Amino acid sequence: MTNMDKLYQAVESRGPVCVGLDTDFSYLPADFVKPELTAGENIVRFNRAILEATKEVAGCYKVQVAYYEALGLDGLRAYRDTLAMVRQAGIPVIADIKRGDIAKTAEMYAKGHFEGDFEADFVTLAPYMGLDSISPYLPYAQKSGKGLFVLCRTSNGGAKDFEYEKLADGRHVYDLVGDKLVELGRDYMGEKGYSSIGLVIGGTHTEEAEEIRARYGSTFFLIPGYGAQGGKAEDIARYLNKGNGGTVNSSRGVLLAYKKQEGVAFDEAAYNECVRMKEDIAHACSLL
Amino acid sequence: MTNMDKLYQAVESRGPVCVGLDTDFSYLPADFVKPELTAGENIVRFNRAILEATKEVAGCYKVQVAYYEALGLDGLRAYRDTLAMVRQAGIPVIADIKRGDIAKTAEMYAKGHFEGDFEADFVTLAPYMGLDSISPYLPYAQKSGKGLFVLCRTSNGGAKDFEYEKLADGRHVYDLVGDKLVELGRDYMGEKGYSSIGLVIGGTHTEEAEEIRARYGSTFFLIPGYGAQGGKAEDIARYLNKGNGGTVNSSRGVLLAYKKQEGVAFDEAAYNECVRMKEDIAHACSLL
Repeated sequence: MTNMDKLYQAVESRGPVCVGLDTDFSYLPADFVKPELTAGENIVRFNRAILEATKEVAGCYKVQVAYYEALGLDGLRAYRDTLAMVRQAGIPVIADIKRGDIAKTAEMYAKGHFEGDFEADFVTLAPYMGLDSISPYLPYAQKSGKGLFVLCRTSNGGAKDFEYEKLADGRHVYDLVGDKLVELGRDYMGEKGYSSIGLVIGGTHTEEAEEIRARYGSTFFLIPGYGAQGGKAEDIARYLNKGNGGTVNSSRGVLLAYKKQEGVAFDEAAYNECVRMKEDIAHACSLL
Repeated sequence: MTNMDKLYQAVESRGPVCVGLDTDFSYLPADFVKPELTAGENIVRFNRAILEATKEVAGCYKVQVAYYEALGLDGLRAYRDTLAMVRQAGIPVIADIKRGDIAKTAEMYAKGHFEGDFEADFVTLAPYMGLDSISPYLPYAQKSGKGLFVLCRTSNGGAKDFEYEKLADGRHVYDLVGDKLVELGRDYMGEKGYSSIGLVIGGTHTEEAEEIRARYGSTFFLIPGYGAQGGKAEDIARYLNKGNGGTVNSSRGVLLAYKKQEGVAFDEAAYNECVRMKEDIAHACSLL
């Protein structure tokens, strides 16, 4: 069973919410911070509380490494400990690293993020340099079921700059990226009908949602952009296959939910927000 | 004075060779390794010896973070220490991180790699997600002269997959990327005629070298692909402006030079290779 199969099962049993542990130190409630600990140690405590509170209602977790790199070695210890705690809980974890480099270097990244201190179940990758920057991760898909999510059509405004450009053959740049990766994924199919090569498809700009979902039927989507970035449940539902086939990330929406729920503890607020989001998406799916 | 100005001066005084400290533990001669030290600690010793041996004949250094991430926290300590030793020597250092993410996340990467444990003079970035994934680094260009090298046309075979695709308007994808970044760079010009936004232009596939150099006259190039990847000095010379305006990376070619120079110590062999490469490029420039 591949990690993509496990992710499918996780979404089936706990829903499509992916909690983004993109934890900035400033997100921690002041009275939660223990001044005798480092920023990274406090972040791990916060992440643990979020994990414990939300693990029954989140399909998986995503850890954005940038927030940890920002704190140097202290942050990367927190990154290691955060990945380890999610994996120990038996829940799929995506390392949101968006790496992309020549094959020799990609081998090093694959080793760094699929083995050792920073081992994750999935990594996100950037496609700009081409397929030889993706293929070094595939031996890990083959031998240990690891999965990839490659950037295709992202949720940010800047997606218009290059991804949306029209090619001479009429496709968008992102279509070409998606088509090539889906083709590559055919050799890495799991039991649940999805390949080990997923795509990152932003939950915003959803005018082409149905077309994309139909075109990439056996591809699992990592869908950022819900909430803070403007993506709505009715749009996101169209990227899912009857509520599965994708996982919908929310980071600040969950971690900072306590700022919108007066008098509620941050972890309880995070739970409430996951439940609300899960129901919001399930409702939207039921209307399709 | 910007870091790009300092890099220009470094190339003027010591030549265009950029030594890539992309140090895999397996590169270290067996009799150099101290078994009581960690892999990362041994790599730092190796890098220090390379730096000491080559610093009079190298314009700058590039550190590929993937080789350090591959070793987890031990590797990232070595990464921190390697960056610090090059900066302490007063030599420009490029963090080859190829990050690319939404603005909020890019702010975190900028903080992580332009401040604190992993502070470097330059970072490499990936453009796929658009200009809002680049702009968060620019406040550092403004306030402390930091520089960027953004992937444009890379040296690997996979460059053909997306970068070389033709757009509806006849340009390659890489032309569009280059054009937009050069435009953005106009607001970040240094004293030496180059902006703080450089481009990564591979030293292979050089049929368009003169056109690219002419088109991006005020853009400094980071040029990978010399040697191991097949780039020749006569091609690379065309990407330079009379021997400046670019820095030419060699990693394995320098670090593993000792394997081709029988009976010569690894650091002396690295020095010899830098001198050979520097003369090879200077000769090619003199023939243009």
